[in-house]
Amino acid sequence: MTNKDARTPASTQNPTETSVNGEAGKSIGWHKAYIEGSRPDLRVPVRQVHLTNGQSVTLYDTSGPYTDPLVDTDVRRGLPPLRENWIVARGDTEEYAGRPVRPEDDGIKHTSPRGGLRNLDAVFPGRPRQPRRGRDGKAVTQLAYARRGEITPEMEYVAIRENVSPEVVREEIAAGRAVLPANVNHPEIEPMIIGKRFLVKVNANIGNSAVTSSIEEEVEKMTWATRWGADTVMDLSTGRNIHTTREWVLRNSPVPIGTVPLYQALEKVDGRAEELTWEIYKDTVIEQAEQGVDYMTVHAGVRLAYVPLTANRKTGIVSRGGSIMAAWCLAHHKESFLYENFEELCEILAAYDVTYSLGDGLRPGSIADANDEAQFAELRTLGELNRIAKRFNVQTMIEGPGHVPMHKIKENIDLQQEICDEAPFYTLGPLTTDVAPAYDHITSGIGAAMIAWWGTAMLCYVTPKEHLGLPNRDDVKTGVITYKIAAHAADLAKGHPGAQEWDDALSDARFEFRWEDQFNLALDPDTAREFHDETLPAEPAKTAHFCSMCGPKFCSMKISQDIRREHGGSRTEIEEGMAQKSKEFAAAGNRVYLPIAD
Amino acid sequence: MTNKDARTPASTQNPTETSVNGEAGKSIGWHKAYIEGSRPDLRVPVRQVHLTNGQSVTLYDTSGPYTDPLVDTDVRRGLPPLRENWIVARGDTEEYAGRPVRPEDDGIKHTSPRGGLRNLDAVFPGRPRQPRRGRDGKAVTQLAYARRGEITPEMEYVAIRENVSPEVVREEIAAGRAVLPANVNHPEIEPMIIGKRFLVKVNANIGNSAVTSSIEEEVEKMTWATRWGADTVMDLSTGRNIHTTREWVLRNSPVPIGTVPLYQALEKVDGRAEELTWEIYKDTVIEQAEQGVDYMTVHAGVRLAYVPLTANRKTGIVSRGGSIMAAWCLAHHKESFLYENFEELCEILAAYDVTYSLGDGLRPGSIADANDEAQFAELRTLGELNRIAKRFNVQTMIEGPGHVPMHKIKENIDLQQEICDEAPFYTLGPLTTDVAPAYDHITSGIGAAMIAWWGTAMLCYVTPKEHLGLPNRDDVKTGVITYKIAAHAADLAKGHPGAQEWDDALSDARFEFRWEDQFNLALDPDTAREFHDETLPAEPAKTAHFCSMCGPKFCSMKISQDIRREHGGSRTEIEEGMAQKSKEFAAAGNRVYLPIAD
Repeated sequence: MTNKDARTPASTQNPTETSVNGEAGKSIGWHKAYIEGSRPDLRVPVRQVHLTNGQSVTLYDTSGPYTDPLVDTDVRRGLPPLRENWIVARGDTEEYAGRPVRPEDDGIKHTSPRGGLRNLDAVFPGRPRQPRRGRDGKAVTQLAYARRGEITPEMEYVAIRENVSPEVVREEIAAGRAVLPANVNHPEIEPMIIGKRFLVKVNANIGNSAVTSSIEEEVEKMTWATRWGADTVMDLSTGRNIHTTREWVLRNSPVPIGTVPLYQALEKVDGRAEELTWEIYKDTVIEQAEQGVDYMTVHAGVRLAYVPLTANRKTGIVSRGGSIMAAWCLAHHKESFLYENFEELCEILAAYDVTYSLGDGLRPGSIADANDEAQFAELRTLGELNRIAKRFNVQTMIEGPGHVPMHKIKENIDLQQEICDEAPFYTLGPLTTDVAPAYDHITSGIGAAMIAWWGTAMLCYVTPKEHLGLPNRDDVKTGVITYKIAAHAADLAKGHPGAQEWDDALSDARFEFRWEDQFNLALDPDTAREFHDETLPAEPAKTAHFCSMCGPKFCSMKISQDIRREHGGSRTEIEEGMAQKSKEFAAAGNRVYLPIAD
Repeated sequence: MTNKDARTPASTQNPTETSVNGEAGKSIGWHKAYIEGSRPDLRVPVRQVHLTNGQSVTLYDTSGPYTDPLVDTDVRRGLPPLRENWIVARGDTEEYAGRPVRPEDDGIKHTSPRGGLRNLDAVFPGRPRQPRRGRDGKAVTQLAYARRGEITPEMEYVAIRENVSPEVVREEIAAGRAVLPANVNHPEIEPMIIGKRFLVKVNANIGNSAVTSSIEEEVEKMTWATRWGADTVMDLSTGRNIHTTREWVLRNSPVPIGTVPLYQALEKVDGRAEELTWEIYKDTVIEQAEQGVDYMTVHAGVRLAYVPLTANRKTGIVSRGGSIMAAWCLAHHKESFLYENFEELCEILAAYDVTYSLGDGLRPGSIADANDEAQFAELRTLGELNRIAKRFNVQTMIEGPGHVPMHKIKENIDLQQEICDEAPFYTLGPLTTDVAPAYDHITSGIGAAMIAWWGTAMLCYVTPKEHLGLPNRDDVKTGVITYKIAAHAADLAKGHPGAQEWDDALSDARFEFRWEDQFNLALDPDTAREFHDETLPAEPAKTAHFCSMCGPKFCSMKISQDIRREHGGSRTEIEEGMAQKSKEFAAAGNRVYLPIAD
């Protein structure tokens, strides 16, 4: 993968300084800055790390306005609708009354007394809002715009974020090789792009459980995940308050939000898969599209005929959506209603610019089941559905496994790219072994790094609690950090422009014993600092290092190199020079471990 | 990589039962068992996991006698000398007085009053012992035996451990593609083998620090590391009590112990690299060989001419041994004394069967420096030294990097295998990015899994404290577990015989909701159980699973498969059968999430 059209890295652009504590450029550490685009309302946030040597490094920033001290955020009001003017200015959408919000959207029965008393106006207390959709059934998608040659503000925004030209962004979207998930009803997002030509992205799953989580906790989990680098968040809430939770998450999220509408649809039929209908599902999709969900996992590839293919598997069907659809197909002995109504679904998604994430309901749940007939049969159907979606101008990505041993990973991405016309691949891991529950962020981080190097565009994180329970705050952080490592390792291996600058800056800091810079540049500055202070609280100077041996002024390595340059590389002269330097080395104390002045 | 000569997996062999709490075969969980070889004193330990369905799974066990309740261990006495009779019976070694232990071996100056008072007989209180070496300068190495066609008890032992034939073991050692590190003065070890044809191994580093660790703590760290799966342990102690600490570690270690003799030699010259001499180094090697060190890292590839090649590096020389040797070369402007005296060193190592671990003193310390001229120049020298070592019948492995981005990893193993005649590669990670201090077990676990898949025989672990401080007990465990994951993922990808049985057993348990079996089969049962209980303390039944949908008796998937078999696959008949099953499915309640009886 080359990046010939790459623009200069962000670090050479000129971000507007937004200071921490009001003193621009003075704070040691880092602060939020913005790179302005072609219009004043197009300001791309970056994390600007200030080094003690006076230099600075500009890093991609997913944390949203929450890390800008000049922005006054309030979860009850929601984030400012950054993209609203851009959407309105295009003139191809209309506001409308929208589908009425019903008690059962929040899992409350009509018949229950509590349901009857519920005040639906209180779903979200922020600014009043009517849903918006494409006028006259038009596709108002970034794909439609890209195909007709338009560079939208959203495309320019991600071009600045990715250090590529806007034209590259437009081309990749037009070709279906990238998606820019941006529902017209989610104007709060800071646009981002998912495609193999760009930085590898990370998704974090959140979702309330009936018992333990409150709505505020879910909003907090979302901002926590994005603080550590999550590029998108999927809200997989079930049970009560599912509609209201999603509303709060959407209104406060600076990143695209994904969902699996099937989960909510199933709640509406009390968990009885066989009672699902196309009408209930469609209604749920519209409900969520009106709220602003940016991408939806749709398990339309689980066809009746594929279910028996899973019979000899070690772990059957492990995807929740896949098992629901398989149960429906078996109960009715009919073809999947998602598959049968796929074109109508495309029309709906196109009217809001909801991006498809075509789910792999038959993904392998164990090493033994990887790359089997069921998995690849479904993948071929996803390829077929991808082409249909593109006819309707719906942006589309394809979900991937799961549990796959290392030697079978490449076949997954290669086949997906071939079958799905290079549509972005969005994989869960894959986990490279089944034997380490409690460490599946690591078993899967290995597979994630590899598959991303080979072309996966977005990685769905796995936390240490995978297979065991619900992730808490620490697990979310560990999952995100592990996946940022996998993503960045892949960016390096792919030669993404500017990716290595980060490593270089950190390694320079390490070599020069600039500990504070090393911490501030770290993916997780807090833990790096804490670990260091635990054993070496006051004195970093003990650490041995060859170049510290001679001190910054008298580095034998550097000097020997200088000699080579000066003398054009003649060996005798080098040796004479080396002998001279050997004397100087002795004169300066001959010590391997000079204490570092720090 | 194929394994055509593989024997049946260990699980089909018949281990002798050694019960926990005296009740053989009754305990739920796991217990230590032994597989007996061709002689009664050849008993290979395994970890036998008992499943609730009555089956059992046999896993490789590195934990030594400490996990056998029938063995009474005492760190002051040391482990029983398992191999002593085998060594004596070969008749090619002799006991001798040995080099006197001197106060400076423990970092104590002659001139210091404390040194003068020191009672050297108290180094280790266990059974009295004289060192042993090859008679008449003979090479008493497993390589020498293998080359002349002998299958030693050690070879048979590892053949049982690895589920391969003893002849495969002999061949691999004879060809130099594997090493069996087993100093004649370390009879306590349970033999193990390092080679790409075998299970990927993991090394854990321990080592006291001047301030914080006691001798007992180091022994405890060693047993802790092997409990979680470390196959070898390197004692990298510095400062005071270095000799005594090593003695205690060796006498209590069931796994081979590696060292870097240069570290102790440097202590003997008060940290002044330029004062090192071949004589001091050689004396230190003999001191350690007499104690029983099984393999030694020797940085003989850091030649004077290569030092200037590191001048333009981002992070110069990061290997401690490499920087010491580079400093010596520069200070004297002479060729490395290790390189110059390599043949004599071979004679010494051959007399004790100490295995070479040829150190990569010029390994890259940052992504920017990976695969550079300095690194590969040294590798070519290691290839030359490997051939010399083989002439002297010294077993040899080659150390590798370091920091390497994913796309440059394969070149490392391919070049090493070519240049070093397929000698076992022993790599540190590699770390696939520099940006995540505090998570370098993960940045390196990714690289480790990949390079092991491609042929690395042993992985040196990296803990979360890498670059930041000294690992504590938790860090050691995290490092070992992470690397066992990498190693096992590689075993799977290489198709090692029996490797997938472990994953299959765990996935079966997962699919059937046998939680206890899932925990007991996990790499880290304790953490898996703890995580599960944290959120789902009483009720595992909530977890959705397709096959749980119908319960164990009525599985739609299984039934649809049965129909296919019965009717020879005719589509009409299948559909009729499916329709019938659809009715049965409805009759049974039509529920996706039936509560699991548990």
